[in-house]
Amino acid sequence: MALVVQKYGGSSLASAELIRNVARRIIKKCREGYQVVVVASAMGDTTDDLIKLAYQVNSAPDKRELDLLLSTGEIVASTLLAMALQSLGQPAVSLSGSQAGIRTDKAFSRARITDINPARVLRELEKGKVVVVAGFQGVTEDMDITTLGRGGSDTTAVALAAALRAERCERYTDVDGIYTTDPRLLPEARKLSEISYEEMLEMVTYGFKAIHPRAVELGEVFNVPILVASSFNENPGTLIHKEVSMEIRNKVRGIAHDTDVAKITIVGVPDHPGIAAGIFMPLAEAGISVDTIVQNASIDNITDLTFTVARSQLKHALSVVEPIARSIGAKKVVSDDKLGKVSIIGTGMQNAPGYAARMFDTLSRENINIQLITTSEIRITCIIDEGRLKDAVRALHRAFELDKAT
Amino acid sequence: MALVVQKYGGSSLASAELIRNVARRIIKKCREGYQVVVVASAMGDTTDDLIKLAYQVNSAPDKRELDLLLSTGEIVASTLLAMALQSLGQPAVSLSGSQAGIRTDKAFSRARITDINPARVLRELEKGKVVVVAGFQGVTEDMDITTLGRGGSDTTAVALAAALRAERCERYTDVDGIYTTDPRLLPEARKLSEISYEEMLEMVTYGFKAIHPRAVELGEVFNVPILVASSFNENPGTLIHKEVSMEIRNKVRGIAHDTDVAKITIVGVPDHPGIAAGIFMPLAEAGISVDTIVQNASIDNITDLTFTVARSQLKHALSVVEPIARSIGAKKVVSDDKLGKVSIIGTGMQNAPGYAARMFDTLSRENINIQLITTSEIRITCIIDEGRLKDAVRALHRAFELDKAT
Repeated sequence: MALVVQKYGGSSLASAELIRNVARRIIKKCREGYQVVVVASAMGDTTDDLIKLAYQVNSAPDKRELDLLLSTGEIVASTLLAMALQSLGQPAVSLSGSQAGIRTDKAFSRARITDINPARVLRELEKGKVVVVAGFQGVTEDMDITTLGRGGSDTTAVALAAALRAERCERYTDVDGIYTTDPRLLPEARKLSEISYEEMLEMVTYGFKAIHPRAVELGEVFNVPILVASSFNENPGTLIHKEVSMEIRNKVRGIAHDTDVAKITIVGVPDHPGIAAGIFMPLAEAGISVDTIVQNASIDNITDLTFTVARSQLKHALSVVEPIARSIGAKKVVSDDKLGKVSIIGTGMQNAPGYAARMFDTLSRENINIQLITTSEIRITCIIDEGRLKDAVRALHRAFELDKAT
Repeated sequence: MALVVQKYGGSSLASAELIRNVARRIIKKCREGYQVVVVASAMGDTTDDLIKLAYQVNSAPDKRELDLLLSTGEIVASTLLAMALQSLGQPAVSLSGSQAGIRTDKAFSRARITDINPARVLRELEKGKVVVVAGFQGVTEDMDITTLGRGGSDTTAVALAAALRAERCERYTDVDGIYTTDPRLLPEARKLSEISYEEMLEMVTYGFKAIHPRAVELGEVFNVPILVASSFNENPGTLIHKEVSMEIRNKVRGIAHDTDVAKITIVGVPDHPGIAAGIFMPLAEAGISVDTIVQNASIDNITDLTFTVARSQLKHALSVVEPIARSIGAKKVVSDDKLGKVSIIGTGMQNAPGYAARMFDTLSRENINIQLITTSEIRITCIIDEGRLKDAVRALHRAFELDKAT
């Protein structure tokens, strides 16, 4: 009997009525002949509400306590979903992460799953039950409750699908698939019927919020196909998987964009070995994630070093960089936080030339100045003025013919 | 180092501000040189809110699912209390019932504690931490979460105090002790400084809602002194314990009253062996708890059989009794639900005569008609018209000098 893991996000479970709606969808899947394991997120804003409560009693809540607190949100949603299934005549049982055998390391608030013991889940499936598992949480060997960090329920679902050798993982939220670009920004954005893991990873890393990158990585490692679809309609959704058809591979698949970017330039850096490490090691130690790094060709052993950080980390990054810049005799430090990133993504790019040229040409025709460029094998990213981001997305979407049906 | 178990009710933990207030009280106890284990109830109306949610998705929620759902309420309160303690500089850790080693049978919604493995609690105490345990819950040998039924947090606290050999269990709510009678009914009611387990049991069974009888029974079995006091002030409270001073024992200690009573009389029952069993066995099988039973002396082998049930069970009881009455040839069945119970309670009564006479005389002087009488060794209960209940309590409170200081 084929098995699927379905995951429902908080917006899909935000009220009793929505929970009953989800229960009906699950039962439909059962009637198609599937065994179904469901991973539930916390209802609506529950997690944020619990965090607010925690901060009302402690301005810096202990992570172990916070994890035990937050884990209740997904348990509430899971039990209610199991009850809704039962009221519609479908045998069901809800399990906490701990009861479902989801074991993690001890990194509270951002725990990693170390292994899954699916014995209880399998036992309940054999009894003909839908098994509803509380997402986002696990248990350490000391029986302490951990959470996997934001987006952790996606990770729970894919990990369970891998452990149970499920046919696929279906992830339902209020978003009905992966689009060529953000449809709120560009109404002509089209939904993709399929996308590869690598493309999806580049998209989520470069501005798509549709699914957590950890879940996609895990899906890739264990080769679990992931369907991204809406719980509010019957639209087909997007399948994230390995075997994307050849024709589709030879294309730019999506345009990602992001405004969470700030640029720092250290001007007039004396160029000698070790100077980059002397700047980037302290940033790493301060917990600041550096994205793009560009170093100009050195003239008279003097160079400029430019890099980007998340906008929210700009102040912190400057407080680390400025004393270093002075100590190494650099001329000055300048920064800019009115920037945006636009990326074209597609596995087709790795085998075909001309994508970068076409991207730069398109932006140039729109009179958009490119400040920094960074690439991967399947992605080209340009950093530009934030104010021109929408124009850039629109022009690139058209230039790479994403508005046309495949 | 002496150990106390403190239990805080939901009204004491109903907001972040109240939780911080409770944290300060706990820290005060620590500074007096005690190790402190705290049992927390769910905040305010949390449990009722969760039950409402459950009934929105299922009109007859499964008890296993309901228990897992409800258990989250106490976990939320426990983690917040631990965080509040930490924010005031007191090391603390919260534990679910399962983590605290509270094992129960599988009777979901009304589980009994089978044993407590206090290893984790003791380990945390040794680290100098206050241990906050989620009340009202435990875990079966199959790792399913159970709840102990309403009032279960009191049971958790007394059971933990027994398992940890605590000096005493302190139970804090918005009520500051045990009174000679309900102070809302009779303003001259006085707070008792101490009371015996037996007296307390009779009081809670006959109308005092101050503490759950299971907790008192458990306290008696394991000889755990229980302090009942308020978390909103520093008033001394009432100590429930074994060794009540001799002088106090020779007194009526309290007047209990209750309106949750209805009377059924089967008139004209042919009296032969087995007739009582033929009526009361089916009632027991229907889950109806019968309280007082009175059978008139038989005249010509015809008798009247009167008994009382909870008012909410009257309809159900009648539906069981009426067909039986017809089948055994009884004349008719009559019922009355406008009744109240008033009881005088005191261990002193078992060694001294005259209490019953004084009670009946007092009611008679007030022109209050006694419909039924039932007694235990330390209690006399009269069933009277509901409308005269307050008059009865006032007259008895005065007649037994409960308004005077001991």
